[in-house]
Amino acid sequence: MSIQIISGGVCAAKGYKAAGVHCGIRKNKTKKDLSMILSDVKASAAAVYTTNLVKGAPLAVTKANISDGYAQAVICNSGNANTCNANGIEIAEEMCALVGKAAGISAKDVVVASTGVIGQPLDIAPIAAGIPQLVEALSYEGSDSAAEGIMTTDLAKKEIAVSFEIGGVTCKLGGIAKGSGMIHPNMATMLVFLTTDAAISPEMLSLALKGDIPETFNMLSVDGDTSTNDMVSILANGMAGNEPITAPGEAFEEFMKALNTVTVYLCQHIAADGEGATKLLECVVTGAAAHEQAKITAKSVICSSLVKAAMFGADANWGRVLCAIGYSGAEVDVQKVDVQFISKAGDILVCKDGAGVDFSEEKAKKILLEKEIEIHVELNSGTDSATAWGCDLTYDYVRINGDYRT
Amino acid sequence: MSIQIISGGVCAAKGYKAAGVHCGIRKNKTKKDLSMILSDVKASAAAVYTTNLVKGAPLAVTKANISDGYAQAVICNSGNANTCNANGIEIAEEMCALVGKAAGISAKDVVVASTGVIGQPLDIAPIAAGIPQLVEALSYEGSDSAAEGIMTTDLAKKEIAVSFEIGGVTCKLGGIAKGSGMIHPNMATMLVFLTTDAAISPEMLSLALKGDIPETFNMLSVDGDTSTNDMVSILANGMAGNEPITAPGEAFEEFMKALNTVTVYLCQHIAADGEGATKLLECVVTGAAAHEQAKITAKSVICSSLVKAAMFGADANWGRVLCAIGYSGAEVDVQKVDVQFISKAGDILVCKDGAGVDFSEEKAKKILLEKEIEIHVELNSGTDSATAWGCDLTYDYVRINGDYRT
Repeated sequence: MSIQIISGGVCAAKGYKAAGVHCGIRKNKTKKDLSMILSDVKASAAAVYTTNLVKGAPLAVTKANISDGYAQAVICNSGNANTCNANGIEIAEEMCALVGKAAGISAKDVVVASTGVIGQPLDIAPIAAGIPQLVEALSYEGSDSAAEGIMTTDLAKKEIAVSFEIGGVTCKLGGIAKGSGMIHPNMATMLVFLTTDAAISPEMLSLALKGDIPETFNMLSVDGDTSTNDMVSILANGMAGNEPITAPGEAFEEFMKALNTVTVYLCQHIAADGEGATKLLECVVTGAAAHEQAKITAKSVICSSLVKAAMFGADANWGRVLCAIGYSGAEVDVQKVDVQFISKAGDILVCKDGAGVDFSEEKAKKILLEKEIEIHVELNSGTDSATAWGCDLTYDYVRINGDYRT
Repeated sequence: MSIQIISGGVCAAKGYKAAGVHCGIRKNKTKKDLSMILSDVKASAAAVYTTNLVKGAPLAVTKANISDGYAQAVICNSGNANTCNANGIEIAEEMCALVGKAAGISAKDVVVASTGVIGQPLDIAPIAAGIPQLVEALSYEGSDSAAEGIMTTDLAKKEIAVSFEIGGVTCKLGGIAKGSGMIHPNMATMLVFLTTDAAISPEMLSLALKGDIPETFNMLSVDGDTSTNDMVSILANGMAGNEPITAPGEAFEEFMKALNTVTVYLCQHIAADGEGATKLLECVVTGAAAHEQAKITAKSVICSSLVKAAMFGADANWGRVLCAIGYSGAEVDVQKVDVQFISKAGDILVCKDGAGVDFSEEKAKKILLEKEIEIHVELNSGTDSATAWGCDLTYDYVRINGDYRT
C-alpha cells in the first residue's frame, strides 16, 4: 500500500485529541489564541529548534521536557512569543504545569510553544483561565480548531495527514503548521506539530526528523528572517500497534517517506501562505555536481527579493534568476545554466547556456500569471538535485510588516 | 587643513571633464543614457568588482584595460547591463574603441561599465552615434550631467567632492554614483566613479580602494541582491602636483581619510535613495569583542526585511532587531544587548540586556517618523564597532521591481 492522503490533520493518528480556544491573549475575541494536542498515552517525542541565538523561552523548556525522549501533550499560544522577557522561562514552565494539572499528566511531558510579538511580557492569567476550558474542548476531531489557534498572520489553516503501512500494519501521521513571516532556511522557522500512531523509539524518531528537515523546512523561505521561536515537533504514541521501529531499515524508510509527504505538503502551504504572498514559488535545481550545490542554488533563487518581486509582477526577468545563482556561493559554471519557467499553463525556456534565448513574452506572461510557479534551473554539471519553496514579494508583505504590533 | 566638502563632483579634481547624453538606448528621450569622464592626462587607475559569479561583460573588459594600472576615461551606459549576452565582450570592447577614437586616447585606457536589464543584447548603434556627441559635450563642469546619465531607478543624482592636503599641497577627490536596487554587501554593488588629482601610484591607489570598501560599500544593503555588473573605480591623474604617494605613511593616511569621506557620503545617499526607500537606516554596532563581529551584526540588522518593514511603518519593533542579531552568525551574548533608536527627534532605549524596557510608544513613533534613523546596538562585550547602511522596505520597492522590464 502506498502513502495515502487522508483527513484529520493532527488527530488523524490514533489516540490524539486537539482543540483551540480564545483565552484572551489577543484582544480580538473571534481569534483563537491557545491550542493543545493531547495523546492518550505517553509518546516518543522529538523536536528541532531555530538556529537563532535569540531563542524563545518556550524552546528551552520544551528541550528540557523532552530530553528523556517522551512527551504527551503540546500547548501553544499565539499573540505573544514569550521571547526576550525577563520571566519567560517561568511563564513557559507555568504553562506546562497548568496543562499537567488540567490533563492529569506530568508537567515534564509537555511540549510548549509561543508565537507572536517578541519582547512583551506574556500574562499568564488568560492562559491559566483558558487551559481548563481548552482541556474540556479536546476532541478526536479537533485538528482544525487547534490549527486555527496557532495562526498569526496566516490566512489559511495548514493541516494534512497520511496513512501508510509498516509491516502490514496501517499507521497514520499528520500535522498542523503555522507560518507565515520570519520564514527562512535554517530551521526551525515556523511552528509545526506532528503526531503519529506509529511505534518508533525516541532515538529513531529524532533521527527521522533530523534527516527530513534539511530537505524540507530548511529549504523554505518567505522573507529571509529566521525566527527566534519556531520549532518542528513530533509525537509518536505507538497506538497503531506496529512492530516498534528501533533501527534503520525498511520500516524506518517507510516512516521517512510518510513523514516527507507531510512535511513537503506543509512547506508548500506555508510558502503559498507567506505574508502577503499571491504565488507559491518552487525552485527546482537539477544537474548539479553535488547535492549541497543544488541546495545552495535553489535557496538563493527563492530568497532573492528581486526574483520574488518579478514573480509578483509575472515578469519573466530571468536575468535576476541568473544573478541570484551567481551570488549564491554555489560552485556553478554559469555558462552552462538553463532556466525554464513552468506552471500549469505550460513551460518556457528563457535562458540557455547562461544567455538569453528568444521567447514569447506573451506565453511567459501567461505561465507566470498562475498561482504556482516552478523556476527550473538546470546546471548541466551532474546528476544531483534539490528543491526550495518560497513566495512572491508583494505590497501586502510590506503592509503586514510595516505595523505588525498595532 | 582638514577635509572640506566642495562642489564639482567627479569634475572637482583638476583635469577631469565629464558629460552625459541621451543616445537612444532608452526609449524615453528625456532620460540620459550614456556618460563619460575624461582625464586630461593618463591616470593611475584601480577598481573593485562584484563578487557575483555572473559578471557583466564590461567588467572583464575594464579589468583587462586597467591591468597595467592606468586609464584615462570612463564610459558608462544605462538602460542595458550588457550581461549574459553572447556578444557582450565584443560590444564592451567596441565601446572602448569608439571612446578611444573620439577622444584621441588608447582604447586600452578606458574603464567601461553598463547598467540596466540583464540578458538583452546591447545594440552598439546608438552608442556609436552618441559617443562623438558625448565627447563634444565634455566639460569641466559636467559632473551633474554625467551623474544623470548613469541613473537607472535612482531618483536623486549622487555626487560629492572633498578637498584635502597632502604635504601642504591641496588635492581634490570626488565621485558620482548610481544605486538603487540590487545593492547588497559584498561589493561591488553599484556603480561608483571616483576621480582625484592627487598623485598616487597604481599600487597604492588599489590598496586604498581595497582598504576602504570593506567598511563602506560592502556595508551597504538595499535588498540583499548582489548585482552582476557593478563596480567602484577610481582615477588619480596627479595634476594636484603633490609628492606622489608610493608607500604607506602619513600622506597615504590623509588620502584614505579623504576617500572615506567621499565613500561614506555616497553610501548614505545610495541607501537613502534605495528603490522605494523613504528612510535612510544606519545601524551602528558598538561594544563588540571583534570588528568582524560588529560588521556581521550591523549587516544582519540592516538586511532584515522585517526590520526594514517596521522602520517603514515607524514601528519600534525592537524584537526584530534582536532577532536579526540572533541569526546573524555573529558570536554575540544576546543577554547583554542594548538597542536604541536615534534620530534628530531624539533617542530612546527600547531594549536593555536583551529584554524589553518600558518606553513611550509616542516618543518612539516621533523618533522613527524622521527620514534618517540610527539603530544603535551596544553589545557590551568589547570596544570594537561598525556601521552599516540601508533603507526601509516599502510598497514602492515592490512596485518598482514587480515589472521592471516594461
